[in-house]
Amino acid sequence: MVDSKIKLPKIPEFDNAAAARARLRQDTLTKPPGSLGRLEPLSIQLAGIYGSSKFSVANKSVIVMAADHGVTEEGVSAFPASVTRQMVMNFLHGGAAINVLARQVGAKVVVVDMGVAADFDRSDGLLQHKIAHGTRNFGKGPAMSREEAEQGIQTGIRIMESEIGAGLDLVALGEMGIGNSTAASAITAVITGQPVSEVTGRGTGLDDHSLQHKIVVIQKAIEVNHPDPQNALDVLIKLGGFEIAGLAGVALSAASHRIPVVMDGFISSSAALLAYKLDPAIKPYLLASHLSVEKGHRAILDHIGLEPLLNLDLRLGEGTGAVLVFNLIEAAARILNEMSTFDKAGVDNKE
Amino acid sequence: MVDSKIKLPKIPEFDNAAAARARLRQDTLTKPPGSLGRLEPLSIQLAGIYGSSKFSVANKSVIVMAADHGVTEEGVSAFPASVTRQMVMNFLHGGAAINVLARQVGAKVVVVDMGVAADFDRSDGLLQHKIAHGTRNFGKGPAMSREEAEQGIQTGIRIMESEIGAGLDLVALGEMGIGNSTAASAITAVITGQPVSEVTGRGTGLDDHSLQHKIVVIQKAIEVNHPDPQNALDVLIKLGGFEIAGLAGVALSAASHRIPVVMDGFISSSAALLAYKLDPAIKPYLLASHLSVEKGHRAILDHIGLEPLLNLDLRLGEGTGAVLVFNLIEAAARILNEMSTFDKAGVDNKE
Repeated sequence: MVDSKIKLPKIPEFDNAAAARARLRQDTLTKPPGSLGRLEPLSIQLAGIYGSSKFSVANKSVIVMAADHGVTEEGVSAFPASVTRQMVMNFLHGGAAINVLARQVGAKVVVVDMGVAADFDRSDGLLQHKIAHGTRNFGKGPAMSREEAEQGIQTGIRIMESEIGAGLDLVALGEMGIGNSTAASAITAVITGQPVSEVTGRGTGLDDHSLQHKIVVIQKAIEVNHPDPQNALDVLIKLGGFEIAGLAGVALSAASHRIPVVMDGFISSSAALLAYKLDPAIKPYLLASHLSVEKGHRAILDHIGLEPLLNLDLRLGEGTGAVLVFNLIEAAARILNEMSTFDKAGVDNKE
Repeated sequence: MVDSKIKLPKIPEFDNAAAARARLRQDTLTKPPGSLGRLEPLSIQLAGIYGSSKFSVANKSVIVMAADHGVTEEGVSAFPASVTRQMVMNFLHGGAAINVLARQVGAKVVVVDMGVAADFDRSDGLLQHKIAHGTRNFGKGPAMSREEAEQGIQTGIRIMESEIGAGLDLVALGEMGIGNSTAASAITAVITGQPVSEVTGRGTGLDDHSLQHKIVVIQKAIEVNHPDPQNALDVLIKLGGFEIAGLAGVALSAASHRIPVVMDGFISSSAALLAYKLDPAIKPYLLASHLSVEKGHRAILDHIGLEPLLNLDLRLGEGTGAVLVFNLIEAAARILNEMSTFDKAGVDNKE
């Protein structure tokens, strides 16, 4: 059994007073109360996170963590493992979907090598924090050591602290790693208690036969490793990935600094799930951007108790859905800060 | 019986060849095919509308048409009719939700008086096309004359032609008019054949008792007026509004110039429904932005055969949901134009 204790930053309480002020303000704005639907509770949640009903979401980043997965040797992905390194280069050259969508919303893309099974030049503009050249194959034993898992989490925390030091207001969790939907499904099955077959999807595009094989690989991995569902660190060590460890750290650090954490799809949400199990105080700081096609995603959102804002049949990852939701977050913030009140605009209120 | 013939601009065919080129390009971009979900068919639809897989959505407007409704004298709205004029002033001063959301996406807000029951100064920056000081109470007879209905449609067409002449790429339909959800419900019931009670909602916030009254008023109005469900012009004359007539004209004109028409909520969609009945060739040019809380909205979308992109429990109107979707449209366009291909980025494709 792994000792479940790990040093983590303290997460402050959600500011109910600031949220209440935002709620009151919403009802003075020139619109029927509640008519902006989910933008209204979103603005109220943001106020409670920031501890102020006046807040800025100007400085936005998506932290895209990349790593490889030893379990790919079991044949669980439609794409070859070489693609992890190639896509990191694509991120650095600005040609991937996350680059395009981040440019649209003025968000910075921070690309981190957490454990890609290939080396990069120092000159690439990449944050180099490689823990190892990919995890070990968790079909045969633990994916990583306890030291590696802690190093992953602490790396995420330090990267986030550096971003926050530079004035960050809002962060999205992004990832790249061939094989990482296998890790996310294994983590989700263990922590939520759902059957593996209910939380395992096609990833980048498996056919029916390969999907069945992926399910068997995950079932076997859970048998071999005996992870303790009550111990998130144990689950991470046995079934996780280095990018998943890092993103859990990013999420915990962001919440500890009152920065909203925008989850993307299934894999980034499995990192948020581990963060939530490590410290449930993170919950009010989490925003579920969209519902992925990957079927395990709903189990994670239900387990934490979150409702996604978008349902666009996305299943890419990289942080793409999270960055799309930056638009809605900015809209919610602007509504609260820029709309006129009934009094100021001289508009008659409800009869 | 009203003659159903009216002179309308010719709508060109959707460009299937351009759509096919966009589809091919999507499958060469560095992502698993289909992984960007609804952004992919959205980009393909846009290519077919513009007649090119290379298109720009840089110049965006929301046309917000305002008018009053005689039927408000039956007590069908939670807000007093005075609010229509006051909200028009709020639009002109930039303090309404639509102003805030349009600023976020760089869209121009074009405010048009189609029939507000109050006068405005010439200096207000308002497009003044008042047909009358509100419609007549359709609980007692037709809302407008045939000449007024045609004038409404032609005004919408002319306004759109002027916007397109100035370089417009993308248009959203917006509206303001106390009482106009009553008109939209009446139009929807007649054209879709649904019972009035199934397509009538709380508008700006009616209680249960007032909602029942609103349903009875609409049922009586349909009995009194005997609109012909096969004749959209007849339905508009008997149960419509001047802003609804104008927006139908805007939609028809936009489609005739290969400009995508982004519908907002229930009222703007009732205008799109009339446009669709006047010329079904408009259908591929229509984009359903969101699903409104107003229960009649789903009946309209089902009747035309459209699926909304967002479901955020919005019920404000003004074009707010449509302008939020400008972000997704821009995202779809950028994905198609800016992402790298597998070949160019040197990324291995699916095994």
